[in-house]
Amino acid sequence: MSRPRPLVPRSDPADSVRVVGEFGVIARVLARAGTAAAAEVGPGDDAAVVRAADGRVVVTTDVLVEGRHFRRDWSTAEDIGHKAAAANLADVAAMGATTTALVVGLACPPDTPTSWLEGIASGLAAECAPMGAAVVGGDTVASSPDSTGVVLSVTALGDLGGRAPVRRSGARAGQVVALAGKLGWSAAGLAVLRRGFTSPHSVVAAHRRPTPPYAAGPAAADVRASAMCDVSDGLVADAGHLARDSGVVLDLDSAALAQACLEPVGPLQQVGSALGVDPMAWVLTGGEDHALLATFPPNAVLPYGWSVIGSVRAPGRREPGVRVDGKPAADVLQAVGAERPGHVHFG
Amino acid sequence: MSRPRPLVPRSDPADSVRVVGEFGVIARVLARAGTAAAAEVGPGDDAAVVRAADGRVVVTTDVLVEGRHFRRDWSTAEDIGHKAAAANLADVAAMGATTTALVVGLACPPDTPTSWLEGIASGLAAECAPMGAAVVGGDTVASSPDSTGVVLSVTALGDLGGRAPVRRSGARAGQVVALAGKLGWSAAGLAVLRRGFTSPHSVVAAHRRPTPPYAAGPAAADVRASAMCDVSDGLVADAGHLARDSGVVLDLDSAALAQACLEPVGPLQQVGSALGVDPMAWVLTGGEDHALLATFPPNAVLPYGWSVIGSVRAPGRREPGVRVDGKPAADVLQAVGAERPGHVHFG
Repeated sequence: MSRPRPLVPRSDPADSVRVVGEFGVIARVLARAGTAAAAEVGPGDDAAVVRAADGRVVVTTDVLVEGRHFRRDWSTAEDIGHKAAAANLADVAAMGATTTALVVGLACPPDTPTSWLEGIASGLAAECAPMGAAVVGGDTVASSPDSTGVVLSVTALGDLGGRAPVRRSGARAGQVVALAGKLGWSAAGLAVLRRGFTSPHSVVAAHRRPTPPYAAGPAAADVRASAMCDVSDGLVADAGHLARDSGVVLDLDSAALAQACLEPVGPLQQVGSALGVDPMAWVLTGGEDHALLATFPPNAVLPYGWSVIGSVRAPGRREPGVRVDGKPAADVLQAVGAERPGHVHFG
Repeated sequence: MSRPRPLVPRSDPADSVRVVGEFGVIARVLARAGTAAAAEVGPGDDAAVVRAADGRVVVTTDVLVEGRHFRRDWSTAEDIGHKAAAANLADVAAMGATTTALVVGLACPPDTPTSWLEGIASGLAAECAPMGAAVVGGDTVASSPDSTGVVLSVTALGDLGGRAPVRRSGARAGQVVALAGKLGWSAAGLAVLRRGFTSPHSVVAAHRRPTPPYAAGPAAADVRASAMCDVSDGLVADAGHLARDSGVVLDLDSAALAQACLEPVGPLQQVGSALGVDPMAWVLTGGEDHALLATFPPNAVLPYGWSVIGSVRAPGRREPGVRVDGKPAADVLQAVGAERPGHVHFG
């Protein structure tokens, strides 16, 4: 593990948003924004106009707060842009849709370097570009006089391409539970950064720029996934929401989960060993990798990237929720030393 | 003028968002959210799904920061919800569209009263309800550890109903400039509040809850308005953006403007007289009433609510921009004692 290099931008008063001014900032940021294939009217007017050929539009929003969701000394501006976009693109994918456009709200102190905002714009653009999406509008304002932190609010629009939206409430007993994407990598990367290290690179990179399996969402919808969500708060927490919304028990198979998430032996075991953490704790409770969790009819042929990790059962006399190998999730979390099923807001 | 009553909510630790928790807050807020007529999937899933029968969707976002855009001792939570919605609904109207749905991002200190957030939700819902729109999704997070202020980010989706979007760039020489809605009332209300007063009620209410002429936007599009924007930063500032985007001069007629905005004699003159301010300064530079400014072909029959306030001219040897009675806007602003053409961000 190596010590971090400082990532905080050099403070150049002439580069501050106060000096550059709102319209200068907007011009410099828009130069990085790219172009959305679906935009009929892009940035610079009262509102943008985005094509929605499907006749419906998917919409989701996420707010990232400096000091809570990112730190400027742990992530570059580009990283934060990537991460903010990823959180939204994953939510759109979890409905079975593809992102077409973003709008961005930003509250920042007047001494924020404009170059840092350009980095945010570059990261947002780079994360969206592979699917033809881009930022089509935004609002940049000065943050509260007493605040030194940036608040970044991203809203994504998505297109279902004729698919039925996949909700959280459609899981039924007898179906299979499946996962696409990584679990625990971002949490392990955060644990590494918290100890003051920046390697192994793979988990730190996963924390800075998650790589959600966007295409797996529409692919799951195409084979009639019955329920789907993204894992942003932690597997046990988010599976719990899906289970309760569907009125079922999701029984996760720890061996299948380990096979999906911990084989071949990789950085989670390496970091776990170095930090004295059972890597299964990160798999069960780590958020922000934005894996997708879905349920499928038992006879479904799962698309590329999906692995079965459990089964859907009727709750019977039990409350709907998550079990692991038939046991209450809380017992298993305790056994692996995890304190909580997932991220707690306002904690 | 009467002295203000305190509007800050009584602090009840048991009501704080930290104690109520994210999901408790969401449940209580959603109970106030209303239902969007166009929502196919509403709040509570990874994303919402909103019908866009037109095959296009209008999207705009605005960020409101406590201490910059609102104060909790000057405005109730309901007021702030109304105001945040109005800023977005007016942007949608300025494209010629009608709002169908909102999503809301909120960063707030953990000791924020949940009842205050319920008030925000009630205000947002009440402002949207007349057009069948509602909040369909959101994200609520704790603000930066060092911040005591709330950041409220609202994104609106709108439907063009088959109309061509009205952009800022379509004004042409020989056309007329017209206005719908109030100018200067919010600025006069702010001036009153800054002096520690809360009356006259009409201007204070206009500052707390602007009443943009939403229906005037689509109505203008229906008669082929050539360019349109909402007045959020001030008439001279926003007319300047439209003029430059169109490559024209907007020549405002001060007598027509006074007739549209200051007759019959009303509260602007009353407050101006009490505070020693030329009310025309508020008309020319006051934002946040969200009036609509548009240009129309010379033979257009203006819809209800629109008044001619000037004409569009070719710039000739001059730069595109705003003039008043043929004179540079800066001269006129100086004459009425206005310091700036409109709101300066990051100032």
